[in-house]
Amino acid sequence: MNHSAKMAQALRLLLAFLAIGSCIASDNIDLWPMPKTVSHGTQKLYIKKDITMSMVGSTYSDEKSILKDAFQRMVDLITLNHVIDGINPTSMVLTCVNVVVHTPDDELNFGADESYNLTVPTTGDPLYAQIEAQTVFGALHGLQTFGQLCYFDFTSRLIELNSAPWIITDTPRFPYRGLLIDTARHYLPVKIIKGVIDAMTYSKLNVLHWHIVDEQSFPIEIPSYPKLWNGSYSYSERYTMSDAIDIVRYAERRGVNVLAEIDVPGHARSWGVGYPSLWPSDSCREPLDVSKNFTFEVIDGILSDFSKVFKFKFAHLGGDEVNTSCWTTTPHIEGWLNNNHMNVSDAYRDFVLRSQKIAISHGYDIINWEETFNNFGDKLDHKTVVHNWLGEDVAPKVVAAGLRCIVSNQDKWYLDHLDASWEGFYMNEPLKGINDTKQQQLVIGGEVCMWGEEIDASDIEQTIWPRAAAAAERLWTPAEKLANDTRLVTSRLARFRCLLNQRGVAAAPLAGYGRASPAEPGPCVRQ
Amino acid sequence: MNHSAKMAQALRLLLAFLAIGSCIASDNIDLWPMPKTVSHGTQKLYIKKDITMSMVGSTYSDEKSILKDAFQRMVDLITLNHVIDGINPTSMVLTCVNVVVHTPDDELNFGADESYNLTVPTTGDPLYAQIEAQTVFGALHGLQTFGQLCYFDFTSRLIELNSAPWIITDTPRFPYRGLLIDTARHYLPVKIIKGVIDAMTYSKLNVLHWHIVDEQSFPIEIPSYPKLWNGSYSYSERYTMSDAIDIVRYAERRGVNVLAEIDVPGHARSWGVGYPSLWPSDSCREPLDVSKNFTFEVIDGILSDFSKVFKFKFAHLGGDEVNTSCWTTTPHIEGWLNNNHMNVSDAYRDFVLRSQKIAISHGYDIINWEETFNNFGDKLDHKTVVHNWLGEDVAPKVVAAGLRCIVSNQDKWYLDHLDASWEGFYMNEPLKGINDTKQQQLVIGGEVCMWGEEIDASDIEQTIWPRAAAAAERLWTPAEKLANDTRLVTSRLARFRCLLNQRGVAAAPLAGYGRASPAEPGPCVRQ
Repeated sequence: MNHSAKMAQALRLLLAFLAIGSCIASDNIDLWPMPKTVSHGTQKLYIKKDITMSMVGSTYSDEKSILKDAFQRMVDLITLNHVIDGINPTSMVLTCVNVVVHTPDDELNFGADESYNLTVPTTGDPLYAQIEAQTVFGALHGLQTFGQLCYFDFTSRLIELNSAPWIITDTPRFPYRGLLIDTARHYLPVKIIKGVIDAMTYSKLNVLHWHIVDEQSFPIEIPSYPKLWNGSYSYSERYTMSDAIDIVRYAERRGVNVLAEIDVPGHARSWGVGYPSLWPSDSCREPLDVSKNFTFEVIDGILSDFSKVFKFKFAHLGGDEVNTSCWTTTPHIEGWLNNNHMNVSDAYRDFVLRSQKIAISHGYDIINWEETFNNFGDKLDHKTVVHNWLGEDVAPKVVAAGLRCIVSNQDKWYLDHLDASWEGFYMNEPLKGINDTKQQQLVIGGEVCMWGEEIDASDIEQTIWPRAAAAAERLWTPAEKLANDTRLVTSRLARFRCLLNQRGVAAAPLAGYGRASPAEPGPCVRQ
Repeated sequence: MNHSAKMAQALRLLLAFLAIGSCIASDNIDLWPMPKTVSHGTQKLYIKKDITMSMVGSTYSDEKSILKDAFQRMVDLITLNHVIDGINPTSMVLTCVNVVVHTPDDELNFGADESYNLTVPTTGDPLYAQIEAQTVFGALHGLQTFGQLCYFDFTSRLIELNSAPWIITDTPRFPYRGLLIDTARHYLPVKIIKGVIDAMTYSKLNVLHWHIVDEQSFPIEIPSYPKLWNGSYSYSERYTMSDAIDIVRYAERRGVNVLAEIDVPGHARSWGVGYPSLWPSDSCREPLDVSKNFTFEVIDGILSDFSKVFKFKFAHLGGDEVNTSCWTTTPHIEGWLNNNHMNVSDAYRDFVLRSQKIAISHGYDIINWEETFNNFGDKLDHKTVVHNWLGEDVAPKVVAAGLRCIVSNQDKWYLDHLDASWEGFYMNEPLKGINDTKQQQLVIGGEVCMWGEEIDASDIEQTIWPRAAAAAERLWTPAEKLANDTRLVTSRLARFRCLLNQRGVAAAPLAGYGRASPAEPGPCVRQ
């Protein structure tokens, strides 16, 4: 950005500020999650029917059409439910969104700058909104925010935008804002997964944690060990590597990284359907056989194949809920333990550490569930991110030990807990009990978890939404702008859930726990 | 169809029959609803990646692109979930679907010929499937059936089709196969309504009964009386007339008619929000004021506006659950009754008959809920179709009286009854107790009803599906091919519900009542 462009932009911002008559901070602002700063005026604008996007001033070329496609999706969303058949007025018409992206890169790296500024002025000829961002992924968030400002007006029969001019500056509080899906307990068709990704972008979540495999099924193709997906539920309940690439690409183009997990050694019984020697024995099938090199060769093959598909900085290696009794009751493993002078705790630790090394050799940083930290935290590779789930007191210990942490305490952020309320999702604070600023920075974010034992394609959407959106604001919005009392955000979240419904996402009513159905007839916002 | 074309077709059918080695009637045929006749062989075909459609031999021009768009939707569905990256083989590749439509008309009239023949041969160069139908709407059903034969193969990485050659002849048992949605108890966004329509076509339902308005809300625009939609739940929970036209067009292009209902005089309290004089009094607001001409002027205005949008042969005028106490407790109505020497029963009858006359004047045949028949059946216009809902014994009486009937007995076919099982939906027989062939023909079909008191956009799909599909087979498939024991169709319906899931429809598991969630981890077909 050269000097005169900077001057022009500063002038533009100043003019927009001056144009705001009565600027109120967060009065009935229908945005979710709430941006860092918002100011607005009182004027109504019309959105031109064939509103266009320009990129004047960008150093980003959009070769892959990431931005152009996102703009079209935004236009499709705001025009989805009503026929726009009003007559374009001659003034106060927003004709264009100019998007200025300051870096040419389009790789979705962890920690990439996701900030953006959005201005919607009331003066100018032609009148155009501007989104300015360091990266295209910041610009995508800006388009989401812009889309939430637009609505169909039943008098003009046009898309309108109220309370202009708008000046919004925004940046996420945490770089990791995740949602877990589980395709091992119930297979999820790719169409459903893509729907989850779309909805994530509406509340600015940015990591899809794909718990692909578990003891019940192994639905994904692993070219290095092609019998592994013999452990799928059925012939059709599978993902090819090309499907995985398709999902990753779909997500990345929307600013969402995909975190792939293999949960070893505990949650892996399905691996042995194709390769029975991975089981301790035919009668004792979990955890994976720690005594065989083949076990680690398979892990290496999987992570090697993963590294060609899942380009996120992290791989998740699980490591939770390891019941080692099969290791001590299986003679050849017991013998191996004795020969190596190890007890089962040692073997569990060595399994996890050896797996970590394999993942690192393929270029990954590692995420492990918190049991690994609780049992042998000081042995974990320093690249480890500890993924909390059991309670809310482990994060302070993790960051005090100098490791990074993701917060997912099950009492508040497990979506399969149908008695967990949206208020609990909203109020769950990842930095609770962590006062040191440097330690706070080690909490890279949080994640809500949609475990699949009792959900499938038929009810995943309303089990995720709107509760995941409540957590999304906690993870996005600056701490000082978060409500201390959920009653202050109830109506805004209710409107956001109605917006999700309008976009075809089956978000459940706020009233009642989990995925409650509406109790009686009434308007959407009162459910 | 000229003579040589007929000869060629007969020869084609004969050759296809001869090519079938072992022809078994209904062994593991993954089609829902089951066609009238099905025969097939044992050979596998590949679907060419860029399979095309031709219309050689058609007298139908597809000016509105109804067929072309339907073909593209079918291709999109069969390629939705997996990347097709296999290499096209050189033989046994189906390159084209030739669709022969014998009538040029593209109006979706009630009782239009929906039959089709589908042949998928194993010989020919090029190899192509053929759908033959009298109308484009029959051809659409043929495309649905063809789409159900196709699946992604994980070895070839192509779309395949098993058990060829196929010869299918098909025609619906009933001309009216309906599903009711209710936008008055909870508003449904247009996006959601279109999703319901899409899913209806997968099981060959063909009437969307739109219960638009009720006592709780009046969401639709009526240009003749523009204050009526003041009774909507909120400013945004509304449909413009253009939206209604859009919905009707969307449905008709998919072979689905839209039946619009105003439920008078009982379920109409919301009308008075915009026009309070429609209420008997401010404190007694239902039924509509029978004593005022204005009431009937408004009904005339609504039906006049409807007639420009809803082109289906029928309008539904409701007429159920009329509690007339407001008429006797409101002095000016009581006076009017006395002056006209009527009691409330007379007034209820006159209200219904007068409304019928208005609807007929706008070109409609009428559908009324069964209370009108139960109370004054001999007075109803002979164009009346009586819509059963209370019990299962009224249909025989209706047809014995020479009127037409639609069956929706609530104990079996009300989707809001969560204790109504899919088995009950499947076994509910519309012709029960009707033995006379001519009387049987007066039962034009049946309808499953998704009343909206306790459902909204968040749970409508899994409350409708798969139970509505169970009823759809009852309404489509010839009586002699229907199972007498639902255990014979359980696995086929389970596969169809998994297909719905794959297509993004949140159809619930079969196990458990209503919209149960899956009880435990497992394959889709075992839920």
